[in-house]
Amino acid sequence: MNFADRVIDVIENKGPLVVGLDPHPEHLPPSLLQRTRGNGDDPLDAFAQAVFAFNRAILDCLRDVVGAVKVQMAFYEMLGPGGMKLLQRTLLEALHLGYLVILDGKRNDISSTAKAYASAYLSYPVLPGNQVVPPQWPCDALTVNPYLGEDGLLPFIEEAHRNEKGLFVLCRTSNPSAPFIQDMGEGETVYQRVATLVDRLGQNLIGRRGFSAIGVVVGATYPRELELLRKKFPYMLFLVPGIGAQEGDMEKLGPAFARKGGGTLVNVSRGIIFAYREGKDLQGENFTGAALERARFYQKRLRQTSQGTLQ
Amino acid sequence: MNFADRVIDVIENKGPLVVGLDPHPEHLPPSLLQRTRGNGDDPLDAFAQAVFAFNRAILDCLRDVVGAVKVQMAFYEMLGPGGMKLLQRTLLEALHLGYLVILDGKRNDISSTAKAYASAYLSYPVLPGNQVVPPQWPCDALTVNPYLGEDGLLPFIEEAHRNEKGLFVLCRTSNPSAPFIQDMGEGETVYQRVATLVDRLGQNLIGRRGFSAIGVVVGATYPRELELLRKKFPYMLFLVPGIGAQEGDMEKLGPAFARKGGGTLVNVSRGIIFAYREGKDLQGENFTGAALERARFYQKRLRQTSQGTLQ
Repeated sequence: MNFADRVIDVIENKGPLVVGLDPHPEHLPPSLLQRTRGNGDDPLDAFAQAVFAFNRAILDCLRDVVGAVKVQMAFYEMLGPGGMKLLQRTLLEALHLGYLVILDGKRNDISSTAKAYASAYLSYPVLPGNQVVPPQWPCDALTVNPYLGEDGLLPFIEEAHRNEKGLFVLCRTSNPSAPFIQDMGEGETVYQRVATLVDRLGQNLIGRRGFSAIGVVVGATYPRELELLRKKFPYMLFLVPGIGAQEGDMEKLGPAFARKGGGTLVNVSRGIIFAYREGKDLQGENFTGAALERARFYQKRLRQTSQGTLQ
Repeated sequence: MNFADRVIDVIENKGPLVVGLDPHPEHLPPSLLQRTRGNGDDPLDAFAQAVFAFNRAILDCLRDVVGAVKVQMAFYEMLGPGGMKLLQRTLLEALHLGYLVILDGKRNDISSTAKAYASAYLSYPVLPGNQVVPPQWPCDALTVNPYLGEDGLLPFIEEAHRNEKGLFVLCRTSNPSAPFIQDMGEGETVYQRVATLVDRLGQNLIGRRGFSAIGVVVGATYPRELELLRKKFPYMLFLVPGIGAQEGDMEKLGPAFARKGGGTLVNVSRGIIFAYREGKDLQGENFTGAALERARFYQKRLRQTSQGTLQ
């Protein structure tokens, strides 16, 4: 099934919310760290086990409310090879529980190397003698960076096409410095050119619901650009970060949603998975309860916004 | 010792050549694959062991001729968690043999996530309770992508500063589509703006030889842009890919070198490590001999070019 159709299904069945599994080491619940301590001499390995316990608990508690997760690779890479094993286990667990899984790696390189990244994240390794082994980083979609232009994106698009995966190309990012490069250009800006390229490259990956499997990342912190892009590309998948810790304004998201709410996924990471830190439960004894409550809140508000019924 | 000073030392002692350890699975010597076959049931693990044997042989045979290596992460990531363990072993081996090691990951993200990447690749993990563990991906420098602007680069620069590491920021890449985004802008283009930003951000990381530890990636396939950038930034480190398989023209590289050859590293990957494929040794029985011969050729030519004595 086309990735874009799977996204529309998730939005219709659960809502637009994507929960970011970004396990910042300093925010993990102290109670959980204490429970998982002492499982061996290697502190990195013990911590990776704590993170997996955290991820599994979050994935398990949100499964009725949330349909998609975004896994930020940086927080796994920072834990070394053991962290990468943890990443693999987290992806398998999320897929096993039925989530749509977006791997947030923002990969990019010249064509011959982009091929290697595309096979890593959207396919499986092909070894000499055509030995085929299972996908190593199983997921539904990957984020990529467009700085190298079309030939750096094509290998990702080919693998997405072949394996019914999706891509989200960075277009207008959510951070304060985003305009520095992304707004350059006269008449057409960099981010507009990226969206136009994505639109063209995605034409062969359009699903039954009219959306292409190749979407863009556009930050909630730039509602004007979000609205302009949505008007120009009504059938493009949007992945929208910047709500929650980044303080993007949920009320201004309305115009980002296309066709009765379809086509836009909104990511919240720290604001949900570390919600226990906002209350009195400083040890995080009930971090899953806090996460579930915040996920319900965001999902409900995002459904209202997407349906244009926000008060 | 400042990273830029280490680079200048390498160039003076050995020459500008950087060898890229990009183990494309389909190009590994058949003879080596046969020797390492049968080490267990897991074909991926067996292949990772073959790649490590290949890397170690290449690193060992080039140590008298070459001072720096660039390790392309994509080819390790594509092999899954076992590939990441192989990456760690390769980095440790290269550093142990005295190479300057550039990790080519082209990482990028918003500030809070860029911090995680910076700690992963330019520092070491800091766990809750301030448990400090060894660096997981030891290297001297990392490549990063500038699409997100200044605030996405700052965490990398802070860690580089703290730990005497280096950065190479993608500026004008070597691929055919590079101009699509990188040439946008009126008066000032995207790639020029990136170089100007890198120049400013690197001011606090200038070593004894006048160069900053924050450099740029500029492709040999664009000699005109390379020359313009070198004229404008005589004290900026350049990492120049695009020679060899990418067919950049070595003769036109002259103007890229600053101050009697200092400050510019030139990368060759496939053209050296898989040099056996260009001769009659189809099984790669003597792949190290072929690599060494090509490395000597490139190093000599690059030294001549950098010293302006090329015929």
